[in-house]
Amino acid sequence: MLLSSMVEPGDAELDDLIDEVGPIEAVERLWKGEVPERLQRITSANVACTRDPRERCEALARATEACGSRVLVPDDAEWPEQLRDLLLVCDAEDPHLRPPRCLWVRGEEDLAETCRRSIAIVGARAASEYGQHVADGLAADLAEAGWTVVSGGAFGIDRAAHLGSMARGGPTVAVLASGLEQPYPQANRSMFDLVVQRGLLVSEWPPSSSPMRHRFLTRNRVIAALAAGTVVVEAGARSGACNTARHAAELGRVLMFTPGPVTSSASVGVHQLAREPWEARLVTRAEEIIEDVTDIGGPLAPAPASPQRAFDRLTETQARLVEALPRGYVVDEGRLAAAAGVPVVTAAETLDQLKGMGWVELLDGRWRLARGGAG
Amino acid sequence: MLLSSMVEPGDAELDDLIDEVGPIEAVERLWKGEVPERLQRITSANVACTRDPRERCEALARATEACGSRVLVPDDAEWPEQLRDLLLVCDAEDPHLRPPRCLWVRGEEDLAETCRRSIAIVGARAASEYGQHVADGLAADLAEAGWTVVSGGAFGIDRAAHLGSMARGGPTVAVLASGLEQPYPQANRSMFDLVVQRGLLVSEWPPSSSPMRHRFLTRNRVIAALAAGTVVVEAGARSGACNTARHAAELGRVLMFTPGPVTSSASVGVHQLAREPWEARLVTRAEEIIEDVTDIGGPLAPAPASPQRAFDRLTETQARLVEALPRGYVVDEGRLAAAAGVPVVTAAETLDQLKGMGWVELLDGRWRLARGGAG
Repeated sequence: MLLSSMVEPGDAELDDLIDEVGPIEAVERLWKGEVPERLQRITSANVACTRDPRERCEALARATEACGSRVLVPDDAEWPEQLRDLLLVCDAEDPHLRPPRCLWVRGEEDLAETCRRSIAIVGARAASEYGQHVADGLAADLAEAGWTVVSGGAFGIDRAAHLGSMARGGPTVAVLASGLEQPYPQANRSMFDLVVQRGLLVSEWPPSSSPMRHRFLTRNRVIAALAAGTVVVEAGARSGACNTARHAAELGRVLMFTPGPVTSSASVGVHQLAREPWEARLVTRAEEIIEDVTDIGGPLAPAPASPQRAFDRLTETQARLVEALPRGYVVDEGRLAAAAGVPVVTAAETLDQLKGMGWVELLDGRWRLARGGAG
Repeated sequence: MLLSSMVEPGDAELDDLIDEVGPIEAVERLWKGEVPERLQRITSANVACTRDPRERCEALARATEACGSRVLVPDDAEWPEQLRDLLLVCDAEDPHLRPPRCLWVRGEEDLAETCRRSIAIVGARAASEYGQHVADGLAADLAEAGWTVVSGGAFGIDRAAHLGSMARGGPTVAVLASGLEQPYPQANRSMFDLVVQRGLLVSEWPPSSSPMRHRFLTRNRVIAALAAGTVVVEAGARSGACNTARHAAELGRVLMFTPGPVTSSASVGVHQLAREPWEARLVTRAEEIIEDVTDIGGPLAPAPASPQRAFDRLTETQARLVEALPRGYVVDEGRLAAAAGVPVVTAAETLDQLKGMGWVELLDGRWRLARGGAG
């Protein structure tokens, strides 16, 4: 809690420190100034004004309780396993893809259980009536079919998705970019109250945190990672929804979209998305969404077995790289080399060979197993 | 001309006879009864009522001239080369995919030249205002960019596409399922007159032929084969436009669609098409259509070179089958075996190996090179 109140999510240096020495020792080192210079610098103001870290922790715990929330960490039973998938795709250039360190949660439901069969519905705040109608209808039908809707807390598509699901008795999960004391935007307060009654509010930031612009982008990876698939319903040319969509594709989640009239500016971003090499699926009904997340892949379906003959012909190094590459995920070359236990230079050469053989492909500078390829 | 007036296009037995002995000898054998029993049966009524085939030919020639049209055969300079691609995909089960035997054409333009850079725009007769607006706009912008629009002659999307293109001075090609004497539907007569002035009316049937239902399906393959790509603008659940789309995909032409509201019944067929394994591309503007037909493939772009290393590792038989499989086309197993000079049993086994290696894939029981695969 204390560390989350001082350093934004996605800080690789802090995460590594916690992995190495645990959160308590990490706090002690911060206060003793025994951490890398950069970490020291970004935490110095907080350290300077906090005499006793323990006291501040207790204050955070009181604030957490005061707004009816609880804190989850990765070891908790209620922690959604699928968030660990973020580790597979994050790299030095995109630290905002690292898994959350902890989550504030508000609502009676179990987070892991609620998200076990879940679909993210995201889209523009400035949605058209058509878009809101579509989001509402899909969410309602998903709820009837027993699927949880995950979304943000914004007006427009997010709001329509929550209301559509809740109207049919579905629990929904709203992942926020603000603290849970005062969920943003405040004008959606009644909706947040309903979500707490039926599902869960989730945030990576302590109760009183304000919804800063960059936090929305950071938040999006959690929405994408929690759900088996993400449906973009309506999005303008530069919508944050397309950022969530990108994360979903990188995580090997099923990426879907609902089309709109080509004459509607509210659908421009969605139609651009459909032309990206991310294999986004067009969906028009909840049945198609369920079909796509259960049939095509994502974390729910087991990876199809490789044809053994082709695999046996690979060299030792080739085989190790192919095996280190989880199906459906995009992985940074350095990270992949490390996972395969192969020197980086060798990995680079071998991956080029594997690309020529149809085993792997590059997506924006990172590697993934070729779909329908040799593997 | 005479044979086309007696036997529908796509008759493999008649086509083989013409290939073997030429059209004149084929006519003579028909009248002498020296043809297979089936051919004799389907032509018997015509043969019985025609004392002199030559006389009937002359009557057909007069009718052709009377409606301002001319006849093209595959050896003519004006015959569009791309129609031969139909030979690559037709098989015994789908004779309606065979290339046309001859074409009646009306208009000043050269058919091959007019179709050299062309896009088919097809869709529902019962189109919405939105669909017609989209078809009109795309056709207009394609005309401005120097691309010919190919379509049918129906109300709705076909009509909107012709008018959109012609309004910007573009030539269009209308491929009809009726003879050119009385283009169907007659209520589109003014549009047909405009098409003749600026582009071409095309038909596989003699001048006085009526537009029978099955002829529309037969006609669709010609639309798909003439153009570098097909755009489906609006189509209901069981539209003929989806039949044209299927032919386009089988022919390795670029298949595209414009989406619509998921709430519109006029777009249901288009959205279904987007979910088929045909890799249909979503397009919203003429620029995207041009980008797709010039970048991705279709008959205009040269096939990318295979990485030599992977190819060199193939066995003799494997290599022959891969080489016999034209990039982007779907080919029947027997036909492919014949083209590669490999026994059918061996071909079947080897294709299974190649599938496991990611070189080829099955699409509805026929083979094609894997996209982004080992090749």
